[in-house]
Amino acid sequence: MSLDPTHETSVIEATLTNLVMANRILARENIIDNFGHVSVRHPLRPDRYFLSRSRSPEIVTRDDIMEFTLEGEQVGNDPRKPYAERHIHGAIYKDRQDVHAVTHHHARSVLPFTMCDVSLRPMFHMASVIGATIPVWDSQDEFGDTNMLVDSMAMGHSLSRALADNAAALLRGHGAICAAADLKSVVMISIGLRDNSELIQATRQLGTVTYLTDGEIEKAGAMLLSPMPVARAWDYWVARAGFGGL
Amino acid sequence: MSLDPTHETSVIEATLTNLVMANRILARENIIDNFGHVSVRHPLRPDRYFLSRSRSPEIVTRDDIMEFTLEGEQVGNDPRKPYAERHIHGAIYKDRQDVHAVTHHHARSVLPFTMCDVSLRPMFHMASVIGATIPVWDSQDEFGDTNMLVDSMAMGHSLSRALADNAAALLRGHGAICAAADLKSVVMISIGLRDNSELIQATRQLGTVTYLTDGEIEKAGAMLLSPMPVARAWDYWVARAGFGGL
Amino acid sequence: MSLDPTHETSVIEATLTNLVMANRILARENIIDNFGHVSVRHPLRPDRYFLSRSRSPEIVTRDDIMEFTLEGEQVGNDPRKPYAERHIHGAIYKDRQDVHAVTHHHARSVLPFTMCDVSLRPMFHMASVIGATIPVWDSQDEFGDTNMLVDSMAMGHSLSRALADNAAALLRGHGAICAAADLKSVVMISIGLRDNSELIQATRQLGTVTYLTDGEIEKAGAMLLSPMPVARAWDYWVARAGFGGL
Amino acid sequence: MSLDPTHETSVIEATLTNLVMANRILARENIIDNFGHVSVRHPLRPDRYFLSRSRSPEIVTRDDIMEFTLEGEQVGNDPRKPYAERHIHGAIYKDRQDVHAVTHHHARSVLPFTMCDVSLRPMFHMASVIGATIPVWDSQDEFGDTNMLVDSMAMGHSLSRALADNAAALLRGHGAICAAADLKSVVMISIGLRDNSELIQATRQLGTVTYLTDGEIEKAGAMLLSPMPVARAWDYWVARAGFGGL
Repeated sequence: MSLDPTHETSVIEATLTNLVMANRILARENIIDNFGHVSVRHPLRPDRYFLSRSRSPEIVTRDDIMEFTLEGEQVGNDPRKPYAERHIHGAIYKDRQDVHAVTHHHARSVLPFTMCDVSLRPMFHMASVIGATIPVWDSQDEFGDTNMLVDSMAMGHSLSRALADNAAALLRGHGAICAAADLKSVVMISIGLRDNSELIQATRQLGTVTYLTDGEIEKAGAMLLSPMPVARAWDYWVARAGFGGL
Repeated sequence: MSLDPTHETSVIEATLTNLVMANRILARENIIDNFGHVSVRHPLRPDRYFLSRSRSPEIVTRDDIMEFTLEGEQVGNDPRKPYAERHIHGAIYKDRQDVHAVTHHHARSVLPFTMCDVSLRPMFHMASVIGATIPVWDSQDEFGDTNMLVDSMAMGHSLSRALADNAAALLRGHGAICAAADLKSVVMISIGLRDNSELIQATRQLGTVTYLTDGEIEKAGAMLLSPMPVARAWDYWVARAGFGGL
Repeated sequence: MSLDPTHETSVIEATLTNLVMANRILARENIIDNFGHVSVRHPLRPDRYFLSRSRSPEIVTRDDIMEFTLEGEQVGNDPRKPYAERHIHGAIYKDRQDVHAVTHHHARSVLPFTMCDVSLRPMFHMASVIGATIPVWDSQDEFGDTNMLVDSMAMGHSLSRALADNAAALLRGHGAICAAADLKSVVMISIGLRDNSELIQATRQLGTVTYLTDGEIEKAGAMLLSPMPVARAWDYWVARAGFGGL
Repeated sequence: MSLDPTHETSVIEATLTNLVMANRILARENIIDNFGHVSVRHPLRPDRYFLSRSRSPEIVTRDDIMEFTLEGEQVGNDPRKPYAERHIHGAIYKDRQDVHAVTHHHARSVLPFTMCDVSLRPMFHMASVIGATIPVWDSQDEFGDTNMLVDSMAMGHSLSRALADNAAALLRGHGAICAAADLKSVVMISIGLRDNSELIQATRQLGTVTYLTDGEIEKAGAMLLSPMPVARAWDYWVARAGFGGL
């Protein structure tokens, strides 16, 4: 790339501003609480990504953002501690050229689906963004008894293989990951995953879940992840997170 | 009509103020989130209606309101994008002379009822405003695999036919529409639909739902949609939405 | 009574301040929403009671309080409209000399119990204040199809007979009433009724509900309705309702 | 210990500041409402503990903190009333040298597990801090019909025996206790207990709960209760409780 340095700086700063907002939005929407995180690939260097230092997203600020290589090495000499689970992000960015933003969270409504044989396939149009298939990954299969953190590149790649080319995957007894082409989309997918989980649980109390058809998932998902709906939703989340003046 | 222009303006402005409030109330009460909308028929020209530009109701202001013909053509040269699903509103206004306000929303508790054979008939008096019958419309029946948006007059009229002369209808895997004689009533119906859905789900865990009788639905519904109860409820919603000083 | 007039005024004003607070507390705790109300018997004239004009408790102020005879006749010439269901309060005050405060509400978790044969008997100590027996009243039994409001003294007395000497009763498809010796206690009973309802619903998903024994209900109820616990709880509710500075 | 008096004072004050924060955090996170409490062992005198006077944690301030012997005798001449259930704290501090912080609460999601034969064993990694075994204590077994308060040292010791060397125990029809090496950990355990309860209830609607293995509980629990995760979580709770500026 041959952007002049001033332009490069402003592209990066815009990305980091959105990353801080994504942190706050995911906290406000109860996707991420004290643990969990969201990252974005470096807009100019695809071999790098940005992620907060080890801090709860609710209170992350611009100053907390660190830069990492895809192997999870911190760029620079920041003495603060990074997230132990940053390798989730690096592994997915290595394996998926199309992914530029990743969340890892423990949204409570998703947890039951990490251990039950009930499909999380979309059942209403706003959830179509999560895609037709949501794989489940169990850390026991390859790693046995652990502290359950995905805290090595080996575990990150194992999880990334389970994700394959899907938009979301579940971690047994742990949580979920979501991956998308940009930050706003990964927020929409994270929220859609939570909402779809809640609705499938509620619907099963009443009767049989009618999942969307493959055609509906594809068409509604493409429509919702297009610029207009993503921008409309983002403005809403930004306002709710208290950035109304921006 | 032969109102003088000043009076006409004040009638229209009062309508638009209420429309902005209805947007904010429906956001505050979790009926509408990033998607969904509420419209009102033009108070002086029944062949027109008012609706926000494509924006989340939580942040809609007076300046966002656009005017449309019943065919969904924007009146004026506003370059901003309208809601793709505005045709829901136009089709209902065309088909129902008695309707002057419409909501379209995805209140989460309603979604399970769009696909299960469980009656949403009122089970407590405050829900009587939704009426005895809540039809279900499935976009698959006439239109097959779509992106699930009601984004043409043909789909709007199909949905409106399903609504018939009822106060509310459900859209499979999508959400609901509510229609009423005025904005305050359509807010009450939207909230009643949500509450009745939650209660039927909860009651079925305990035993058999005892729905209201036809006589109770008719009498309680007429009472609740009369001026005093509607005004009392509206004052409450306005205060909760942060318009306490009005 | 032979209080001097200044003292009488201050006794009444203290009562009315608590009544306004009880309105706001019940709104804050989601016991009462746009409909429902709370009254207090006149502290010096047992043949009178105080109740807001027809207004949502969330926004009730000192100026909204009206005085009524036990027959529901307004004392004075206030042209504002009273609650149609004020007769609930008058009938109970007539029938129960021990009762000095009454709530009528539609707390959502209580509604399923108004129509299912599941006991609302206390299952945890904080709910012991609701008493061992919660009768159910059905307006159909004596009055057939109505608009479901308890809007006459005849209906009020019918409901009061069902309440008998208990602390709470349910109204089929409608809501609940709670009665107590004072305002703070009736708030505690109203909240205990809601919480017990939620817990019985949740527990039945896991297994069999173990209700408290008669002895536990009597002893825990007497303890909780004694001055210290009631004052501690009231201070908490007052702070949550935004009266922290009082 | 041979700290100089100034240092002693600052150690104590730091402990009390954290105790006030723990009160507010547990209120904010809906673990403790009008009743329930949190204590800390005196940092310099292991035969003493600190606990608020009888007040709801939501409004506890530094000035409300009292000092007690392990027998529950107040140190000093404060005329204000202590919690009747302070003996829970003293008994555990006597029986467990490793415990320096205790909560007693009635988090609603925990209540069903106090009476049903369903294991509260951790099912997701963040709940691993509650430990593999959660005993249940029933006041009926030794004390018969009571007001259900643990208001004597005899009852406190009975409950403490049931707790044994675990991190949490349940009280039938009443609530829970949690015990840990420090205040921040006991808050994490209290919240983990609530979240695990909610998730087991939700998962059982979908299928069979897969609990964590013994190895996972041990490893994840040790990791989460280490300084970094506890500090991260504490910063989050402090911010949510409104102490963001601290």
